[in-house]
Amino acid sequence: MPISHLGHAELLVPNVEESTAFFTQIIGLQLTEKHDGQAYLRGWQDWDHSTLILTEAGEPGLGHLAWRVPTKADGDQLRAAVEERGISVSAIDGGSVVGHGDAYRFITPGGIPMELYWEVERFQARGAQVSRLKSHPNRVPLSACAPRRIDHCGILVADVQAEQEFLTDVLGIPHRYYVTGPDGKRWGSWLSATNVSHEISLVPAATGYFHHLAYHIDTPEMVLRAATILIDYGYELEWGPGKHGTSGGTYLYFREPSGNRVELWSDGMMIFAPDWEPLEWTPEIAEVGRSMWGEEYPESFSTGTQLAGSLVASS
Amino acid sequence: MPISHLGHAELLVPNVEESTAFFTQIIGLQLTEKHDGQAYLRGWQDWDHSTLILTEAGEPGLGHLAWRVPTKADGDQLRAAVEERGISVSAIDGGSVVGHGDAYRFITPGGIPMELYWEVERFQARGAQVSRLKSHPNRVPLSACAPRRIDHCGILVADVQAEQEFLTDVLGIPHRYYVTGPDGKRWGSWLSATNVSHEISLVPAATGYFHHLAYHIDTPEMVLRAATILIDYGYELEWGPGKHGTSGGTYLYFREPSGNRVELWSDGMMIFAPDWEPLEWTPEIAEVGRSMWGEEYPESFSTGTQLAGSLVASS
Amino acid sequence: MPISHLGHAELLVPNVEESTAFFTQIIGLQLTEKHDGQAYLRGWQDWDHSTLILTEAGEPGLGHLAWRVPTKADGDQLRAAVEERGISVSAIDGGSVVGHGDAYRFITPGGIPMELYWEVERFQARGAQVSRLKSHPNRVPLSACAPRRIDHCGILVADVQAEQEFLTDVLGIPHRYYVTGPDGKRWGSWLSATNVSHEISLVPAATGYFHHLAYHIDTPEMVLRAATILIDYGYELEWGPGKHGTSGGTYLYFREPSGNRVELWSDGMMIFAPDWEPLEWTPEIAEVGRSMWGEEYPESFSTGTQLAGSLVASS
Amino acid sequence: MPISHLGHAELLVPNVEESTAFFTQIIGLQLTEKHDGQAYLRGWQDWDHSTLILTEAGEPGLGHLAWRVPTKADGDQLRAAVEERGISVSAIDGGSVVGHGDAYRFITPGGIPMELYWEVERFQARGAQVSRLKSHPNRVPLSACAPRRIDHCGILVADVQAEQEFLTDVLGIPHRYYVTGPDGKRWGSWLSATNVSHEISLVPAATGYFHHLAYHIDTPEMVLRAATILIDYGYELEWGPGKHGTSGGTYLYFREPSGNRVELWSDGMMIFAPDWEPLEWTPEIAEVGRSMWGEEYPESFSTGTQLAGSLVASS
Repeated sequence: MPISHLGHAELLVPNVEESTAFFTQIIGLQLTEKHDGQAYLRGWQDWDHSTLILTEAGEPGLGHLAWRVPTKADGDQLRAAVEERGISVSAIDGGSVVGHGDAYRFITPGGIPMELYWEVERFQARGAQVSRLKSHPNRVPLSACAPRRIDHCGILVADVQAEQEFLTDVLGIPHRYYVTGPDGKRWGSWLSATNVSHEISLVPAATGYFHHLAYHIDTPEMVLRAATILIDYGYELEWGPGKHGTSGGTYLYFREPSGNRVELWSDGMMIFAPDWEPLEWTPEIAEVGRSMWGEEYPESFSTGTQLAGSLVASS
Repeated sequence: MPISHLGHAELLVPNVEESTAFFTQIIGLQLTEKHDGQAYLRGWQDWDHSTLILTEAGEPGLGHLAWRVPTKADGDQLRAAVEERGISVSAIDGGSVVGHGDAYRFITPGGIPMELYWEVERFQARGAQVSRLKSHPNRVPLSACAPRRIDHCGILVADVQAEQEFLTDVLGIPHRYYVTGPDGKRWGSWLSATNVSHEISLVPAATGYFHHLAYHIDTPEMVLRAATILIDYGYELEWGPGKHGTSGGTYLYFREPSGNRVELWSDGMMIFAPDWEPLEWTPEIAEVGRSMWGEEYPESFSTGTQLAGSLVASS
Repeated sequence: MPISHLGHAELLVPNVEESTAFFTQIIGLQLTEKHDGQAYLRGWQDWDHSTLILTEAGEPGLGHLAWRVPTKADGDQLRAAVEERGISVSAIDGGSVVGHGDAYRFITPGGIPMELYWEVERFQARGAQVSRLKSHPNRVPLSACAPRRIDHCGILVADVQAEQEFLTDVLGIPHRYYVTGPDGKRWGSWLSATNVSHEISLVPAATGYFHHLAYHIDTPEMVLRAATILIDYGYELEWGPGKHGTSGGTYLYFREPSGNRVELWSDGMMIFAPDWEPLEWTPEIAEVGRSMWGEEYPESFSTGTQLAGSLVASS
Repeated sequence: MPISHLGHAELLVPNVEESTAFFTQIIGLQLTEKHDGQAYLRGWQDWDHSTLILTEAGEPGLGHLAWRVPTKADGDQLRAAVEERGISVSAIDGGSVVGHGDAYRFITPGGIPMELYWEVERFQARGAQVSRLKSHPNRVPLSACAPRRIDHCGILVADVQAEQEFLTDVLGIPHRYYVTGPDGKRWGSWLSATNVSHEISLVPAATGYFHHLAYHIDTPEMVLRAATILIDYGYELEWGPGKHGTSGGTYLYFREPSGNRVELWSDGMMIFAPDWEPLEWTPEIAEVGRSMWGEEYPESFSTGTQLAGSLVASS
């Protein structure tokens, strides 16, 4: 299993100022640095330089999704496996990016712009950020909806099963659970390289789209508190608070000011077995898997913002 | 303000065995006694003999809703005020009921079968129920969804405003907040004699119906846990978990096996001002007042079970 | 029961700037106004102008503790009752104070500087404070330890029983529970005019002192979160988080920068019975009553800051 | 990193009946099977046959601590590494044990009786246990303090640093954080093979002892609830509820009826970095690391029950 964990996501945002203000002031992410139309953010217990990069762009979407591998050798091994599938991989010079070292980039068959990197800059608190607790890379935020760490990313793809097989067979990301539709087709797949229930989810769409980026907050109660804050400060909730039956995670979905969907979530199950058999959610229980409390999602929830990869792929 | 607090509710249940099992085993109410087709139940920190009476009947519904007054003199004063409105009041002999003393009964203009009583039997734990904590009338239940106390009752009435005015002007129960519809009419009213946000709610229906009985549990998190338990043990949720904007209370509505709607709720606001001005929820904010998270209620939620009073009234 | 509820407390603070900054930035109270060496603060769901007044003074302590009565007639009735005990009562002109109208002031036998008032200025949110929710007198704070409302005040007095009897018999504040020491003497008394478990507590000390002012936050989890924030921002906890067996309340005690003790607490029991019999905590269970989890309090916890009344009394 | 995760612990219990009743009825573990003086238990979302084995014995203690490896080849590799250190390893026949297949056993230099196994029997719910949710290996317990899964084990050893180095260098379990005493010596080490903050902790004692077995429950609030239940049902808390600064975990320690220490805990941090540098807690912050709220542990907390290994070692 050469991939260690989901490392960071780059979101494309038409309005980098407004999105940064939202993520820091309302959502409680921490700003590491900001320049040249980019903002680098992290949850308060994310140990690395940044787990979210906001990049100014004409349209909202996912710039790339980055996974950390332990060593360059692991990166090289995955690069070879990807190229063996006929996918071209480009090398990124660490000197040209912020927060990590050299990297490889490619676009998955489903259109996801992926990055692999092995060296990372660890976040260093300064001044009033410094906590007396070694376990706090910075002081715990005063904010009531302060995500602790990046959790997972959701993608809409044309062929869920094919994309899942690519992620599992080529990149080595274990398959955790999936939904089978009444048509017998794969309606959703959830995968993780770590012990969390999933680091990436795939659900069907006509073409590849970015669905959501999720941050983890400590408790279901904090998810509810976040909802109250969003409502009271004039934002709209898109779906939730609710509880996924599949993972047991308590969820809340909403859009950040540039239009990308964000999720705050908590308390999903963990998976430890080295020979985990993916759980199948058959059609008759798919509904309670999607939403344990039975709340339907709005039509808008089936849509996403662009994948930079789909642009590249079509160019 | 002669009324002290909502004391107990009598629910009519076609299946007293199944309803009792549900309330004690799944919901975590405590059984005080059970005989002659009746079961007497209470939340674990209800200090009185019982706050819920289940009475075997052909149809589900509300048998009566009982309010405690401090003394017989208070009861007499209210009796006179009620009779002055042309409503007949019957006297109940304490020897014929369980858990409290003499009482008065009458049916409000909206059809609610009301009871006023002044003497009450305090619950006495026995044997293994006895807690070493004086603040625990019995040991805290092992159950994860253990209501602490009776909270409030919801009624559907033909004329919300007229019923609210009766409750406030005649019975002296302060009006806390209300919803005004786009037609300018009263679409809902919430009242309480205590510091809790409401002990009785009124929303419109063609005729008077019992809508729900609510018990209070300690935290929003326990409301979520109760939802998981209900789902996992094969019950249906009707609406929620969700959060009312009006009171801030976290709610969960479902039906007990005999068909009456029950609510578990937590964390509603409290009201202390002696000259509280009822808050008006105008049409443009009524939706967020009903459900802060925007979840629509199902059609079934507009319906209720019978009020014994409506039967009496029509007889 | 002429007293409606505990209305506000005036704390004497040597450093009004630092104390104000602490209460607003760390504790999450809301500032209503600030001038002439005084700051007026409130919990986010306190409906009145202010529930905490910080007044610059040489020594920390309690300036006065104010209770609202419904009408001037209620105030006059209590004034007469107090004067009948040989205690002098002074009249305060509403024009000389901020946030409420005319008032009476006196010092209890135990040395507590008390105020009674009947007219109050309701808080009016302005600009960005305004919530779309009528139930929110201002937007819910973004802060994670945002008290909802003033809860209670703790006082150290020489003779607990005598002071309790004065509060109950003369001011009409019901007695809720008490601790009897191994010496048969009253070691503590808790009283409330409302349905909350107590609005004022009395424990013994050589002379009268102010012990603590408590604000209510929504859940035990928020008490824990507040502890993490205080620790991470360099403050000391004095006692807790813990759980009182007497009330079931989850507590956290600490000192504000001027030296007065503050408590954040949640989830205490409520009392509704009009004929409530005070619960006795006898010596063999007093310990679990004080701290359900068994945590001893530090020596400093037996001390308090001055009561302005004791100064006045001695002058 | 050949070890997948901590799999199960065998506790030696003088009174297997009483300990089983306590773990199932009060703590909310699930009983898989029970026979021949042994009971097999698990948390409700433990997927394997059992994570806790209670074995009747004259003295309380730890029978063995078992770790799962992916394959026999991984087991063989670790066996060789252990034997290279001059430690004898015995092979266990899967036919002679319940819940898993063949295994290797040995005693670490610090005296911990360890087991490695690769095949496991997955738990199969039957009858009324069966949940409609695929994510629930059985229905979520009705109990309020229902651990979700085994979390970690604490051991007292003579030489913390030497034992940590054995676990890390020989068994490949990464070192997560440690405490350095004022004497410059290692006062504690925490290690995990998974993303949880630790699966085994080591603190100093004159000889090797079993300190505690910890189960994970969902939220800090549930830890508090568990404390209330234990107190109300006549059990003693040993330390907590409290919060470790090192991990951020909310803890509660108590003894099961046979005398072994058990911990319920929640919300510890997670670690994902493949090149994690162990965090050092130096003397001046060790106290806030041990207990963020400053609660001292009782003297009894420095003691443990026997390690079966220490018996074997001395024989």
